[in-house]
Amino acid sequence: LTSPGNPGRLPDERTLIRHLRARLPAQPASLHIGPGDDAAVIVPERGAFQVLTTDVLVEGIHFDRRWSSLADIGHKALAVNLSDLAAMGAAPSHALLSLVLPGDTSLEELDALLDGFLELASAQKVSLAGGNLSRSPGPLMVDVTAVGYVRPRRILTRAGGRPGHGLYVTGTIGGAAAGLGLLRAGRGSPAADGADTPIHRHRRPEPRTRVGMLLGRNRAASACIDLSDGLADAVQQLAEASGTGAVVDVSALPIDAGARSWFEAQGLDPVQAALAGGDDFELLFAVPRKRGGRLRAVQRQARGVTLTRIGELTDPAEGIRLSRDGTELPLTGGFSHF
Amino acid sequence: LTSPGNPGRLPDERTLIRHLRARLPAQPASLHIGPGDDAAVIVPERGAFQVLTTDVLVEGIHFDRRWSSLADIGHKALAVNLSDLAAMGAAPSHALLSLVLPGDTSLEELDALLDGFLELASAQKVSLAGGNLSRSPGPLMVDVTAVGYVRPRRILTRAGGRPGHGLYVTGTIGGAAAGLGLLRAGRGSPAADGADTPIHRHRRPEPRTRVGMLLGRNRAASACIDLSDGLADAVQQLAEASGTGAVVDVSALPIDAGARSWFEAQGLDPVQAALAGGDDFELLFAVPRKRGGRLRAVQRQARGVTLTRIGELTDPAEGIRLSRDGTELPLTGGFSHF
Repeated sequence: LTSPGNPGRLPDERTLIRHLRARLPAQPASLHIGPGDDAAVIVPERGAFQVLTTDVLVEGIHFDRRWSSLADIGHKALAVNLSDLAAMGAAPSHALLSLVLPGDTSLEELDALLDGFLELASAQKVSLAGGNLSRSPGPLMVDVTAVGYVRPRRILTRAGGRPGHGLYVTGTIGGAAAGLGLLRAGRGSPAADGADTPIHRHRRPEPRTRVGMLLGRNRAASACIDLSDGLADAVQQLAEASGTGAVVDVSALPIDAGARSWFEAQGLDPVQAALAGGDDFELLFAVPRKRGGRLRAVQRQARGVTLTRIGELTDPAEGIRLSRDGTELPLTGGFSHF
Repeated sequence: LTSPGNPGRLPDERTLIRHLRARLPAQPASLHIGPGDDAAVIVPERGAFQVLTTDVLVEGIHFDRRWSSLADIGHKALAVNLSDLAAMGAAPSHALLSLVLPGDTSLEELDALLDGFLELASAQKVSLAGGNLSRSPGPLMVDVTAVGYVRPRRILTRAGGRPGHGLYVTGTIGGAAAGLGLLRAGRGSPAADGADTPIHRHRRPEPRTRVGMLLGRNRAASACIDLSDGLADAVQQLAEASGTGAVVDVSALPIDAGARSWFEAQGLDPVQAALAGGDDFELLFAVPRKRGGRLRAVQRQARGVTLTRIGELTDPAEGIRLSRDGTELPLTGGFSHF
């Protein structure tokens, strides 16, 4: 970690870096040089390709400190990056953490952010390899780069889908969007915040690392993408990259039960709201017909994450369509910018 | 590239990503999957360790748009990261670019930023592998992650120096700090901005990639660090990491001539100003006595970058000292927080 521009209320940068290093678990052998030098040195995994992604959370754009604790933000900043690795079928290994901190940040706040980050890192076997600390004249920003590995034949991209391949989604959708709605409506008491509630989904998304790796490992999936910008967006991106159309059966959508109640209470169409809602960080993937057995094998090892068929890829001339039990529906708001 | 939260005046995110991809040169074989999927996939260099660093430029903290063009900012955001790789002796290969853009950013401004980034990337043989676009509620931020490679025996760290090793610095110091001073004083006409002027040094620092690689390759240096936070800071960090003291002969400092004139005109002590001034992005390194021949070999291949002996590492009990032609001097401001 290097620290150009030391935030006001924090100790001087070298003290801070010592403090951060002291919080890290023992370095794995793959981390040849960790935080504290000009850069990190890692030993790439032999025979594997490396997967790299970077994603930033910006205060006022991606999170609101009224509704997420600093530990939530630390967790989510890593989670959104691990979700991108999962969508490629990669096993995560290292991360770099770049913090841009308002001048009034305290050491306790920094520690809380690290708590959330390091807890998820530990659960996902990710080592913090380096990063930097910088001062912000305004919003808090947390930029993470995540590094993972995948065997060349196991790489999942958005581009491998073909007409006739089934479309599947992991877990449930709509939860994170409903959670944000609940929080904005002042319905976010900590007591109501169990592990499966919409509010928890908004605050602490779980990257689908295991399912992504399983789908790539046994080659069940022909294409995969994560749902950072919502299911409607993901369907369009996957279909576009694969050169196909797609039809989604809205009656099959695994809409989160708590989210459905909330959307209905707000007078919203749960299908439209769930299609358009972002931040679920589930995976959308395509499966060729003859790989059904492999898909069932993935489902058996998915540790409770449900895989739901929601439609299929079609001829590109058919575009993106919605149906309900076989009847064509007009496109909803979530698909409008296609 | 992925783009959660599309900036206001820019085209929609997919159009933008197509635009960015169209600007990139042909992908090298090492970039298996470039911008456009959930993450980048690269083929690590066989037999080498990988060096990773991330550094951010924040508007109002690290740059001011009155004094740097967007192309300057794009250049500098990559340069400061390549400087960290150079300090480890690594050859740069790939970069990720994370842009946090104010809502009123135009496509022309984005293109100008990319001009500066891609020009340096091309000169340094760096491929843009991925990144993301995000909206900012306030300042412009440019966060870069740079990836490079180094053979295990050629890695330069801060920690290998021993008492008696000579201390050397590349190029000249004080230029970037003087350039910032000149710009703040309204002395920054474009006409006065030749390639070697202080203002140019502030706007477009050149990472010392070649010298860093040469120093690692023939093992001339026992320790190395870049000068992002100034020479005084670098000497302390290198000595601390190496477990030594250090003595710097201020009469030997290669202070930039234009910077010296500016500091003197301002009534500043040029030595103190040059020691404390950051952003020069030169390298400070230690050389064991018996490696003088190797150092001369590096100097011959350094393409005009001068290597200057400025002191030596000492017993740790001696701390950090300044001398002038052998006479002890009191510590200056640049060393005060040691």
